[in-house]
Amino acid sequence: MPQQLTLYLHKISPYSHRIELALAEANIKYKAHQVDLFNKPKWFAATVNPLGKVPAITYGGPDVDPAEPSSLSFKLAESNVILQFVAELYPESGLLPKDPVERAKVLFFMDAVDRHFDKPGNDWMYGRTESYEVYLKGVEMIQGLLSESGEFAVGDHYTIADATIGPLLSRLKITCGTDIGVFSVGQGTKLGEELKAPKYAKFMKYVQAMLERPSLRDTNDEAYLAEIWKTLIPKRRD
Amino acid sequence: MPQQLTLYLHKISPYSHRIELALAEANIKYKAHQVDLFNKPKWFAATVNPLGKVPAITYGGPDVDPAEPSSLSFKLAESNVILQFVAELYPESGLLPKDPVERAKVLFFMDAVDRHFDKPGNDWMYGRTESYEVYLKGVEMIQGLLSESGEFAVGDHYTIADATIGPLLSRLKITCGTDIGVFSVGQGTKLGEELKAPKYAKFMKYVQAMLERPSLRDTNDEAYLAEIWKTLIPKRRD
Repeated sequence: MPQQLTLYLHKISPYSHRIELALAEANIKYKAHQVDLFNKPKWFAATVNPLGKVPAITYGGPDVDPAEPSSLSFKLAESNVILQFVAELYPESGLLPKDPVERAKVLFFMDAVDRHFDKPGNDWMYGRTESYEVYLKGVEMIQGLLSESGEFAVGDHYTIADATIGPLLSRLKITCGTDIGVFSVGQGTKLGEELKAPKYAKFMKYVQAMLERPSLRDTNDEAYLAEIWKTLIPKRRD
Repeated sequence: MPQQLTLYLHKISPYSHRIELALAEANIKYKAHQVDLFNKPKWFAATVNPLGKVPAITYGGPDVDPAEPSSLSFKLAESNVILQFVAELYPESGLLPKDPVERAKVLFFMDAVDRHFDKPGNDWMYGRTESYEVYLKGVEMIQGLLSESGEFAVGDHYTIADATIGPLLSRLKITCGTDIGVFSVGQGTKLGEELKAPKYAKFMKYVQAMLERPSLRDTNDEAYLAEIWKTLIPKRRD
C-alpha cells in the first residue's frame, strides 16, 4: 500500500507540472506544497532538495505539515526520475507499460523531449540561439516518435511520456499566442504560423489532444503564466 | 526468453562503454559491432540510429550480420535508456533493484552523473569552462550519494548506476595521469593531486573499487584512449 506523497512545486515550473499531470491522470492522492521560488524558504534546501529546485517529493514517513518535512521520509528530485518512481509505485495506473520494449519507447521519448525539444526551445526563448530552427527540428523528431494514431506519445493510452511533454506544449501555445520571449519581435507569432503547415499536422493534432485533457486543463493557468513571463522575460531584441 | 542483442559501439565513447559494462556484469550474450565514428557508414544512421550516434542496439528479429540490420528488430539509442532496457530484460541480473525506492535511487544517481559530473567534466576538458571547480562540486555531490559502504553507487551490489559512472572514472584517471585536455598545462595533474585530499577519500575508494572490477578491466584500453585523445584534443592553452 503506497504511503503519503507530498509534491513540492511552483506553478511557473513545467517540470513540477509534469508530476501534477501524472498524479492527476492516475488519480493519485497527494499533498501539494507551493515553494516560493523567488524567496526560497531555507528549510526546503536543508530538508527536501539540496539543489533547492522543484519538483521534489517526499514519500512515506509520518503524515506531517509539508513545511516541516520529516527526516523519516524518502526524498526525491528531478522530474523524470519522480515520474518513473510514481509510475512504479502505481503499476496499475498504466503510466508505464509492463512490456520492456514499450517501456523503453516511453523512456526514449522522455529523453528525446528533454534533449531535442525542451533544451532548444529554452535556448531560443531565452535568447541563447537566434532562431527557432533547432527547436523546429525537435518538433519533427517528436512527431516522428508519436504513436501511429497520434493520440498518445507511445501506445494507446496516457503514459509518463505524455506527462513529460504536456507542460511544454501548453507553454509553446502561450509563446506563439503572446510572442513573449527573448527573441526578435514577431518570432513567437511566426513560429505559431509555421506550425500550421501540413508537415506538422500530426504533431499539432497531438498538441490539441493533450491540451484538451482534463488533467492539463485542471492544472494549467495560461493567464498567470503569460503575466509572470512578462515580468521575468522583459528583455527583447527590438 | 530474451532475443538477439547487438550493440553498436566505439571504444572512444564512454556512453557505449556503459552498455559493455552492464552486459559484462550481468554475463549477457550479445554481438558487438564497432561503428567507425570518423567515417560513418551510411547504413548506420539509415537503419539503426537516425542521430548516427553510439551506443545503439538492436533487439530481437532474425540473427543477422550487424552491418546489415534487419527491419524487424527493435532499435534503441541513448545510453541510460539502453541500460534500463537491458536491466529490465534481465531482472534476475540485479542491475536494477526491485523495490521502487531503491530503483529511484539508482535512476537519480544516473541523472546526477550526467548533469553534475559528466557535463562539467566535459565542459572543463574541452575548454568550455576555465576551471574544474564545478566538476569538483560534482565529485562532492556524487560522493554524497554513494552507498554507506562506498563500494557501490546504490545498495550492496552492482547496478546500472555503477555502469553509468564507470567509464567516466577510467577517463578521469587518464586525464589526471596524462594531463591531456583543452585546459592550461598542468591542470589535469593538479586535479589528480587535489583528489588525494581526505575530503574526497570516499569517492576515491569507490573509483578504485570500480577500476578494479573485471568488467571494467576487460573492456578498458587506457593506452588506446590516451593515444587517440592526443590526436583529437591537440589544442592546449599553453
